[in-house]
Amino acid sequence: MITEIPKSEFQERVQRIQQELAKRGLDALFAFGSEAEPQNVRYLSDYWPAFETAGVLVPVEGDPVLIIGPESLTYAQSRSKIEKIRQILEFRESAEPEYPGKQLDTFASVFDEISRGKGVKRLGWVGYPIIVAPVYEALRRAMAGGELVRADDILIEMRKVKSENELALMRRAFQISEQAMEAVLNHIKPGMSETQVVGIAQAKMYELGAEYEGHPLYVLSGRNSANAIGRPTAKKLVEGEIIQLNIGARVGGYSSSVGRPIVLGRISDDIRKFLQVGLDASAKTMEVMRAGVPARDVALAVQDFITQRGYGDCILYGPCHGIGLMECEHPWIETNSDYVLQENYTFQVDCFLYTPHYGARWEDGVRVTKEGVEPFSSYRREIIVI
Amino acid sequence: MITEIPKSEFQERVQRIQQELAKRGLDALFAFGSEAEPQNVRYLSDYWPAFETAGVLVPVEGDPVLIIGPESLTYAQSRSKIEKIRQILEFRESAEPEYPGKQLDTFASVFDEISRGKGVKRLGWVGYPIIVAPVYEALRRAMAGGELVRADDILIEMRKVKSENELALMRRAFQISEQAMEAVLNHIKPGMSETQVVGIAQAKMYELGAEYEGHPLYVLSGRNSANAIGRPTAKKLVEGEIIQLNIGARVGGYSSSVGRPIVLGRISDDIRKFLQVGLDASAKTMEVMRAGVPARDVALAVQDFITQRGYGDCILYGPCHGIGLMECEHPWIETNSDYVLQENYTFQVDCFLYTPHYGARWEDGVRVTKEGVEPFSSYRREIIVI
Repeated sequence: MITEIPKSEFQERVQRIQQELAKRGLDALFAFGSEAEPQNVRYLSDYWPAFETAGVLVPVEGDPVLIIGPESLTYAQSRSKIEKIRQILEFRESAEPEYPGKQLDTFASVFDEISRGKGVKRLGWVGYPIIVAPVYEALRRAMAGGELVRADDILIEMRKVKSENELALMRRAFQISEQAMEAVLNHIKPGMSETQVVGIAQAKMYELGAEYEGHPLYVLSGRNSANAIGRPTAKKLVEGEIIQLNIGARVGGYSSSVGRPIVLGRISDDIRKFLQVGLDASAKTMEVMRAGVPARDVALAVQDFITQRGYGDCILYGPCHGIGLMECEHPWIETNSDYVLQENYTFQVDCFLYTPHYGARWEDGVRVTKEGVEPFSSYRREIIVI
Repeated sequence: MITEIPKSEFQERVQRIQQELAKRGLDALFAFGSEAEPQNVRYLSDYWPAFETAGVLVPVEGDPVLIIGPESLTYAQSRSKIEKIRQILEFRESAEPEYPGKQLDTFASVFDEISRGKGVKRLGWVGYPIIVAPVYEALRRAMAGGELVRADDILIEMRKVKSENELALMRRAFQISEQAMEAVLNHIKPGMSETQVVGIAQAKMYELGAEYEGHPLYVLSGRNSANAIGRPTAKKLVEGEIIQLNIGARVGGYSSSVGRPIVLGRISDDIRKFLQVGLDASAKTMEVMRAGVPARDVALAVQDFITQRGYGDCILYGPCHGIGLMECEHPWIETNSDYVLQENYTFQVDCFLYTPHYGARWEDGVRVTKEGVEPFSSYRREIIVI
């Protein structure tokens, strides 16, 4: 059972980027990552920053460089698949320690090194949605006189189609999430707080070999279940309300999430009907997905389906989003999407409906195949009343 | 037992900012926050973003506004202490969903609203180390023609001195961390993976009422213990090696961390001596801290102490950093610090020493008092061999 992407696959990724850089006439590519948004750095190096931020610099020829802050050297050495590591002050933690006397590199010195003194004239860069100001400004200063070109699309395209190793890690992450969900359903009861339920899931995920949670876990009860995004609170669970569980483990960098709305005790007819519409919409989504189908058609079909059942105004967003290194990543499936589903794209089928009083989300991961989808999770796709 | 900062204290914070804005001739203050760096937004609103980012806008007169992304409205309504909430696209999650058809605000429309049409001419802003590019650029576009003034110092100064409510939450967070540490010491054994130990701590913290971890927990064994920053791995624990535990719970937004290096089975003389130096340095640090003492003197005294014991080249950074909403925040105590300790400043006494083979960190929280320090944690400050 693989637990991480092998070094050779990281090297292949770097080579593919170098081909793309040559094609675009770029001297190098810089990708940024942070504690909560590690995706691009992890994709290229397996390194996952904490407290500090990080970057990967890929020259059009030669070895890539991992860039980290002043405190992460031995940590980075212990897990980076990129051997050359340099430290730049602007990647320090947000409390801005000064490290008096410590010698560090700069973007200029690293650019000089990777270009063997010729300089980096045209730099593609990745991470616009997540780069922080000190690194962004240092990068722009270092590139003054040169050209800084947004190149997010290079990594988005590469990351969309998953390799066999990536799929193996995702399948394992979903298995762990399903088992953590089962542990939760075995122990959950009225009077527990939302956060206590998180503790049950966390213990199980780590026991089974998860490296971390795949996203901040959701245990959102009653009115909180209407939150598309939320965090668990000290609120106690009550019989009859919707309790939205989204349990997601992370394995070898790859995220997962299994989402089930459940009810403790008696379920009202209204809630049963509401949950059933979501479950049916989720099944409908999987039914229409297939390699070759326009993404927009999936979104429109599911929107029609929900609207015909009378719940059209309970929709907040499209029925799927990409999943991989991030629980939510490109591509989304929305009614304005203009691409076609391809084999080995991986999605969260994420049917979320909400009213002013409650909400529910059915969520499972799938891989797009020629014939339809391979589900990564399918645990208790039914109205769950405990 | 308080579990959150009362609304009145948030209102006082806003009023203090408004006084400072008036003094500086600023029309408003904007503070940014994200999932892993929520500190400033949480300080002003109690809101903690996930997936999306957030900001708080405080006009020099009138009500503050919480700014969020497209998906967080009901979540923000459920926990923000600021009532006025607006949604701007640039605060969306990093996967860049487009939300076709959804009506949203912009910085321009919100500036117009808070200034009653007069416009924001001079804006102070907070969050330079953490702001992400889309928000930063949207802010700069909206302020084109006006003046954008960095004002991180306003919140840094306010957050340094803790109130009674803040201290109560911190004390509780440290109590929970100590109990989670005890649970770990009761169950840890050779052959467990580092991540399994994290699961034990997580289950206990949530059972006791933590809202989340205060920082990514450390269980770093053997060579990994040399990492100043690190993440637990699948590595199995082995007898005789240093296992570095940093267990930190978060309560009502406030972080904690208790750090202990431990050994399973037999401890070597070298390791015992190394751990003792760290423990003694930690005690020395607490001994010299007191309101009125220059921070630099603390750093120099501890550096001297460690150097005299022959471990001077094992030091990476100063012996303390601030703690509060973040496990690591301003101010640091370094050998070049140029401020004086004040009553109700709160610090992590964080004595980390490392060699090429292993490292160890003794870490406890303290409050600076007129006479010395009030420790927030003191559980088993001794060489722990299990």
